[in-house]
Order: sequence, then structure tokens, then C-alpha cells
Amino acid sequence: MSLVVVGSIAFDAVRTPFGERERMLGGSAVHFSLAASFFTEVRVVGPVGDDFGDDEYAVLHGRGVNTDDIERVEGGRTFFWKGHYEYDLNMAHTDDTQLNVFGEFQPKLSEESKRAENLFLANIQPDLQREVREQCTDTRFAGLDSMNLWIDIARDSLKETISQVDLVFLNDAEIRMLTEQPNLVRAAREVMALGPSVIVAKQGEYGAALFTGENFFALPAFPLETVMDPTGAGDSFAGGFLGFLSAQEDWTDEASLRRAMTYGSVIASFNVQEFGTERVSRLTREEIDERFERLRRMTAL
Amino acid sequence: MSLVVVGSIAFDAVRTPFGERERMLGGSAVHFSLAASFFTEVRVVGPVGDDFGDDEYAVLHGRGVNTDDIERVEGGRTFFWKGHYEYDLNMAHTDDTQLNVFGEFQPKLSEESKRAENLFLANIQPDLQREVREQCTDTRFAGLDSMNLWIDIARDSLKETISQVDLVFLNDAEIRMLTEQPNLVRAAREVMALGPSVIVAKQGEYGAALFTGENFFALPAFPLETVMDPTGAGDSFAGGFLGFLSAQEDWTDEASLRRAMTYGSVIASFNVQEFGTERVSRLTREEIDERFERLRRMTAL
Repeated sequence: MSLVVVGSIAFDAVRTPFGERERMLGGSAVHFSLAASFFTEVRVVGPVGDDFGDDEYAVLHGRGVNTDDIERVEGGRTFFWKGHYEYDLNMAHTDDTQLNVFGEFQPKLSEESKRAENLFLANIQPDLQREVREQCTDTRFAGLDSMNLWIDIARDSLKETISQVDLVFLNDAEIRMLTEQPNLVRAAREVMALGPSVIVAKQGEYGAALFTGENFFALPAFPLETVMDPTGAGDSFAGGFLGFLSAQEDWTDEASLRRAMTYGSVIASFNVQEFGTERVSRLTREEIDERFERLRRMTAL
Repeated sequence: MSLVVVGSIAFDAVRTPFGERERMLGGSAVHFSLAASFFTEVRVVGPVGDDFGDDEYAVLHGRGVNTDDIERVEGGRTFFWKGHYEYDLNMAHTDDTQLNVFGEFQPKLSEESKRAENLFLANIQPDLQREVREQCTDTRFAGLDSMNLWIDIARDSLKETISQVDLVFLNDAEIRMLTEQPNLVRAAREVMALGPSVIVAKQGEYGAALFTGENFFALPAFPLETVMDPTGAGDSFAGGFLGFLSAQEDWTDEASLRRAMTYGSVIASFNVQEFGTERVSRLTREEIDERFERLRRMTAL
């Protein structure tokens, strides 16, 4: 089954205590689709400028990602983000954001994308997420990510969008912020009451927690001695999670959801070991499964 | 086998968003010994003033804790801590500390306590911890807890004490601070290089991680909709952990250590559901085992 993702396609400039890149492929839809490509057919939707060239397409095509719905704006420039991290790699500091072609982005999905069985709305303005959601009338499941900015300035719109999806991926602090409920368990239940049946609370270096109905599951992050660049970790997590889930007959099965958490966590752990898409673009399914098994053993009681 | 704990015995005044107590039994050695008492014989060592009365002894005796080595200082007053928590229950704010009899505490262990098979040095000044450690020459294992204050003002002494124990319990931030190493995996290995074979990184609401040799294990905290008072959670965790371990023939066995993590986490979760020792003092082994099983299922892949 196929999975379509709508989100940002970007050039990133990133500095961490361990190195620096001045211009590399990034963006939520890119990290997501590379991660998901290990499990399912992926189509990526988003705008780029005419500075987006063959090298960038090659990274996506190298993982078999369908780029037919990448909208190339002639004379425009691709979304650009510049940021840095201190030793506390949990916190990104933004130095510059140039929306460029992303500023006027009006998502128009092809018929093929509209017919994709599964949908992920990466972190973009919630009104835009809803426009996409409404174009995909027959999806089996839809998931979304968001961020503190939209909770601040577009809370009602975000809640409306959340009510139209099945799975929500947010940082635990964002779940608390959205619901104004300091207890995470209660906060997750409140988000579920808006409509979604699955809430994933991302917890950075601590891993992630999964709320489904009355069930709870939590998984630590794979322990790493070297984290080079955390950019894209959350999108890689969601990509591994939903990519795996897209390939399952019953996506609501609790055991499948727990395996999805684990694949998400494994791919995110590879993502942060090098800059940008460097590690994931040459990752193999064998490496993923080997780390999956190690993580399973690390949590076995 | 018996387990002796040296640490503070206190009266606590605590305010949280969910309630307030003006004077209740507390202290690291108290929380630890109540938690450990579900698994093994416990002896508690520490000073009290003559304001420490029958009601307080009754809580300890109610759980079968041996109080022969509680040193009662006539004319003295028991250690007093006053603090509060905001909605972020991970962070305690200290409003008042009165050391009282704890200020001149010189630990003198009875022959029975010196002969206890297992030892826990709760969070007190590291020189004092070492004095106790050196009185117990035949222990099977010794564990310790500490805090950021001692890392700040007595780092070398703390490192020396750490080199003389087998198990270290610290918050993850403290492990980083002690080693000046931002990566937790590396930091834990550095603490291990000082001598201990087991490092437990406490992570508050996220649970705890266990480092042993080349192994890694992590466990989420039991999810709770109501956390009333987090005071004593870390000591309850260590008490459940080491109490269970005291009762095992091979305390170094990886499976036993993982079960110890789980018992620690379970008792800590009961501890925080009410104020001070209120919940744990009426807890049953049956309730512990039921929650153990629920937590096991919540982490099963």
C-alpha cells in the first residue's frame, strides 16, 4: 500500500558541537519519506525552487521515493532553515528561516496521491494540513505532526485538523501545551477525545510513548555514544512508524503499533548519527532489522 | 539476606498543586527502607531528635524495619526539609532546610549492621558515606545515591566514594555533571570506569536506564494520571531495586537487575500517588506484583 506525505522540502544549514553543514537536503517530508521507503511505496508532495537539482532528486530516487508531486516553482527558491544545537542536543536554536516557495504553497495533489491508502501531514500550517486531508477522501489512515508555533498562533485550527486524523505525533511538551494539562496521561487522553485513536508522545533522547485506547506502551531511544545532528529525528521516527504501518493489513493492531514504534525509533537513531540525510540515504534493511533486534533485547524483561 | 541503609530521617513540609502537608515523616533512609522492606530484612541507620516519636517509629515497625541503629539525640531536633513543587513535578523547590541533629551526625554502626550482607549509602555528604563504607568490610554489595550539591562542592570525595561501591544511582543530569560528558552513554561508562559495575540513571517521569558492562536496559515510569507528591520517588526506587536484589542469590545476574529496575519503578509509582510515606506504608506485596505485571506488559514488544 502507498503512503503520501505532504510537508517541507528544504535546504538546511546546521551547526552542532560535532560539525557543520552549510547547505544540505532536509525538510520534514524528505526525512519522513526516506525513512518510510524501507517499508512501503512513498509519494512526496511539496514545493521546491529551481535551485533544487539533480543531486537532491537523486537522494529521493535512490530510495525509490516517488517525486511526481514535487511542485517545482520556476524562479523560486527552496525553503531554507539555518539552526544550531549546543551540547544539549534536545533543543534546536533557529538562526534563520527563509520560507521562499513555501510561503505561497497551496497543496494540489495528483489523482494518484489522492488515491494513496495512507497519508501523513508533516508539520505545516494546520489549515494547509486540513486542505490536504480533505482532498484524500478514501484514506485508510491519516497521521499528522505539528509544533509549538501552531499551538501558539493557530490552536483552534490545529484542533480541527487533529479531529480529522487517526494518528497524532507530538512532543510530550506540545501535548501538554495543546491541552493545558500538565499530566501527560490525561493530556494524551484529551487529544484522543478530539478524534484520533493513536497518540505518539515523542520524548527526544528518552524515546517515545504510545497511547491507544486504554493501552500504554513506551520505548527508550536506542542508546548512542555519538549523536551528530538531531535534525529530522522526529520525521524519521514518524516515517519509520507509518511506513511500517502502511505495510500491515490491520494497522490498528496493538502488536503492529508497538513494532511501528520500534522501527521508528531505530531509523531515527540512524538519522542522528550523521548530518541530514547522510546516514539514512545509505542505510539498509538488514541494518535496520539488526538494530531492531538489539533494541528489542534492551527492553526485554 | 539483610540490607542496611544509612541516610536522612526527616520531617518534611511539602506543598504541591494537589495538596499540602505541614509535617510528615520523610527522609531518604525512610523512603528507601519502607520500599526495600517488601523483599528483605532492612536496618536503618540515622539520627533523630527527641521530637521523633512513637507514630514515626510505628510507620517503620509496621513494615518490619529494624530501627535499633536509629540514634536518638536527646535535646536535639530531627532534620527538617520544607519544599514545594509547581506543575512541573520533576523539579523540587527547597524553601527551608534545618539540618538539626543531622549537622553533627557521625555514623556509628552496630555490629549487626556492619555484618549486613548489603549496604545502601543514601544521599549524604560523601566523606560520611565513605566512613560508613569502611565500617562494612564484608558486604556482598554496596550502592549509593548522591546529588548535584556534592558534585558541586565535594566532587573528588564523591568520586572516591563511588570507587568503593558496586552500584550507583544518580539522575541522568547528575551523571553528565559528574563526568562533564554530555552524552549519557559515555558518561555512564566513565562512572563505571571509577569502579562500580552497575549504573542506574534515574530519569524522573521518563523512568530509568540501567548500564551494566556492555549491556543497556531502560524502563519507562509507570504511567499515572495523578501524581500527588514526588518526594522520595528516587529513594523508593532505589529501595525497591536493592531490596529485591538483596534477596537474589546472584545479584549480578542481568535478568535480576532488570527485575530490580521494575520493582523499583513500581514502588516509586505508588510512592508518588500520595504524600510522603502515606501510600507505601499501607502497600501490599500483591499490589506490587499486580503493577509489576502491568508494567511488564506495557513494555513488551
